[in-house]
Amino acid sequence: MPAFFEVSRHSVKSKARLGTITTSHGKIQTPAFVPVGTKGTVKALTPSLLKEIGVQVSFVNTYHLVTHPGPEVIEKAGGIHAYSRMDIPLMSDSGGFQVFSLGRRNAKLRGDDSTVGIITTLHKGDELPLVEKISEDGVKFRSLYDGQLIEFTPEKSMEYQRQIGADLLMAFDECTYHPATREYTESALRRTHEWLKRCIQYLAQHRVFKSTSPSVWGLRRLSQKQVSSHRHKQYLYGIIQGGIYEDLRIASAKCITQQDVSGVAIGGVSVGETKREMREQVGWVAPYLPTDKPVHLLGIGQIDDIIDLVKYGIDTFDCVEPTRLARMGTIYQIQISNFKFQIFHIDINKSLFRADMTPVDETCSCYVCRNFTKSYLHHLFKQREILGYTLATHHNLAVMERVMERIREMIQRGKI
Amino acid sequence: MPAFFEVSRHSVKSKARLGTITTSHGKIQTPAFVPVGTKGTVKALTPSLLKEIGVQVSFVNTYHLVTHPGPEVIEKAGGIHAYSRMDIPLMSDSGGFQVFSLGRRNAKLRGDDSTVGIITTLHKGDELPLVEKISEDGVKFRSLYDGQLIEFTPEKSMEYQRQIGADLLMAFDECTYHPATREYTESALRRTHEWLKRCIQYLAQHRVFKSTSPSVWGLRRLSQKQVSSHRHKQYLYGIIQGGIYEDLRIASAKCITQQDVSGVAIGGVSVGETKREMREQVGWVAPYLPTDKPVHLLGIGQIDDIIDLVKYGIDTFDCVEPTRLARMGTIYQIQISNFKFQIFHIDINKSLFRADMTPVDETCSCYVCRNFTKSYLHHLFKQREILGYTLATHHNLAVMERVMERIREMIQRGKI
Repeated sequence: MPAFFEVSRHSVKSKARLGTITTSHGKIQTPAFVPVGTKGTVKALTPSLLKEIGVQVSFVNTYHLVTHPGPEVIEKAGGIHAYSRMDIPLMSDSGGFQVFSLGRRNAKLRGDDSTVGIITTLHKGDELPLVEKISEDGVKFRSLYDGQLIEFTPEKSMEYQRQIGADLLMAFDECTYHPATREYTESALRRTHEWLKRCIQYLAQHRVFKSTSPSVWGLRRLSQKQVSSHRHKQYLYGIIQGGIYEDLRIASAKCITQQDVSGVAIGGVSVGETKREMREQVGWVAPYLPTDKPVHLLGIGQIDDIIDLVKYGIDTFDCVEPTRLARMGTIYQIQISNFKFQIFHIDINKSLFRADMTPVDETCSCYVCRNFTKSYLHHLFKQREILGYTLATHHNLAVMERVMERIREMIQRGKI
Repeated sequence: MPAFFEVSRHSVKSKARLGTITTSHGKIQTPAFVPVGTKGTVKALTPSLLKEIGVQVSFVNTYHLVTHPGPEVIEKAGGIHAYSRMDIPLMSDSGGFQVFSLGRRNAKLRGDDSTVGIITTLHKGDELPLVEKISEDGVKFRSLYDGQLIEFTPEKSMEYQRQIGADLLMAFDECTYHPATREYTESALRRTHEWLKRCIQYLAQHRVFKSTSPSVWGLRRLSQKQVSSHRHKQYLYGIIQGGIYEDLRIASAKCITQQDVSGVAIGGVSVGETKREMREQVGWVAPYLPTDKPVHLLGIGQIDDIIDLVKYGIDTFDCVEPTRLARMGTIYQIQISNFKFQIFHIDINKSLFRADMTPVDETCSCYVCRNFTKSYLHHLFKQREILGYTLATHHNLAVMERVMERIREMIQRGKI
């Protein structure tokens, strides 16, 4: 059995590296892009198409899955792999980000334009209709879906993630909003570090995902190999926070990397104002990132970000952009010559594409570019045909895989 | 080269028969169900999935394709097969039905509850905002899409269908609305018969679909076999009309079958009030249907209808029901024991399916039933995930294929 994470090559020029993450559901060659499949489906794609594209790993959101269909349903199905048939390594988040951003959005809806983090807002006695209570212990809120009271604590988050059964789990953290005060960020960070210890403790007793009630149907239909995957190891990532404060970020990096975690994630950098700030925040902690554990960057994954940030030692990136833009008709074109990338977005809705019989991207050999014209995609989008969303998503993710492959090649050849 | 239509077996008990329709894009074993791909896509399915399901033939709507992207665009692409990559035999309608039903719907929107066909309404001096003019020559209307003035005459319909490039074409007819007066139905039928002659005449000069401007890209990417399919024969079906009047229906059947057409279709029976009436109307013309040409029933294809109507000698059936219901979450379950069919519709949106870990249909071996639970489909529908529409459509069409296969087996064994 190979180690969970192995580095096969370090760049001499930067912290960039080639690695392999090994899970019960397969290996991930890093650096890797992680498409988001929030509710247990990468929107508009069948699991077979995901495989065809070459997607190595996907990301599911615990908050959404807890709200519907509920973690007990997924556990009953034999875990998210069996439930969704995404038979690749899966990563789940802790639910924390959504809980906090949900509250934040509610605040915005109410016309409250306080720029202080929502917990602070709450502490001032404000009412958020859906978030019931935030404390040192965790957060309680009402489900937007059916009004059910749902609680997230470090233990609950771990238990939900255990039931969902992804391979790579995130510790429950508090993601402060930009720009939170230093005082508030410090107290949030203290909670995040305390919560990590409780996550580790909880998971130590439940490290192996075991479906307590795998569906009879599931067992009947699954191959032996699949049945045995109903028991698999789950690996925990601790999350570095610290907002916009360099010393807090560094302190957090030092604290997290000393814990008994399998991987390290960097959180809260996607909520900043500018890309420059975001990269700066990653830069602060780069010297403290582990060499023997995989590093994930939460919520960041535009192509230019990835190209720059692998140099800091980031191994995996999740981001909704390629799939979300695809559903709007914004399609990637990429030119890679030698080791330079040029990235274009085309809006396939534009009428200039009505009779354009060229493929979306002349240099792309994905199913979509091999078979369909810009004209056909334009037609599907103008007519709001579902197939348009499927084909655009397929292509954008194929581009992401091609970019990552080239980045790995560049590291291999010492070009990064 | 086999004949266009060959019958391999006639039932001794009824007019039911086993046949093969041979086109440049493949063969159709009849009786066959024809899923509708209105705008050049069977909604929510990739062309590869259509193949995987075993769909033999699909139906596109000339009216919709003329409105967008325009017949000249499809011709430029090398025809609808190259454009949509539905590499199976395709059938196109004449556009007439939509033109008339569009006008009718406009009349309804205006609160006009006249029960007379819309052309009569027009003749009375009524204004329909989108239909500009209906005459002996054809109909002019404004596109709902961009306000463009579009004309359908027998010649125009044939030219549009030539440009679209399906294998099986429908003559331009007038579909009278239920219940039109006898006087009106007679005059509409006279037009339909005149128009058929003009369609035949037009197509005689253009029988071979030849893309006058196949896209350079298309040619570069297509295999030799596909390029040669840029030239292919198109087969015309004449349409029997006659509304609710037995003698008119019979006169129409006699007239149509004597013309130089490759196939015969029965139109206008889907607009009646009851299934009984619809079947009665098909029954009237059954004795006059050709034995050496395929017979298509327009717009009818519920499973019970198909089972009953193959006995009248119907070979192909198009209907939006399986795909439309699928997108609403209504999923077929079918039990076939010996030669009896039991059909159930389940509404996967119902909360009773939230934790139901059985497949949609225990007896079905389609991709969906082999891999997914009712619980997962319920989850996808409740969360309005696109994948739900794809999976439900896939399953319902797989059921249709299974039903048709069993019907062909029943005819083979003399059970119909």
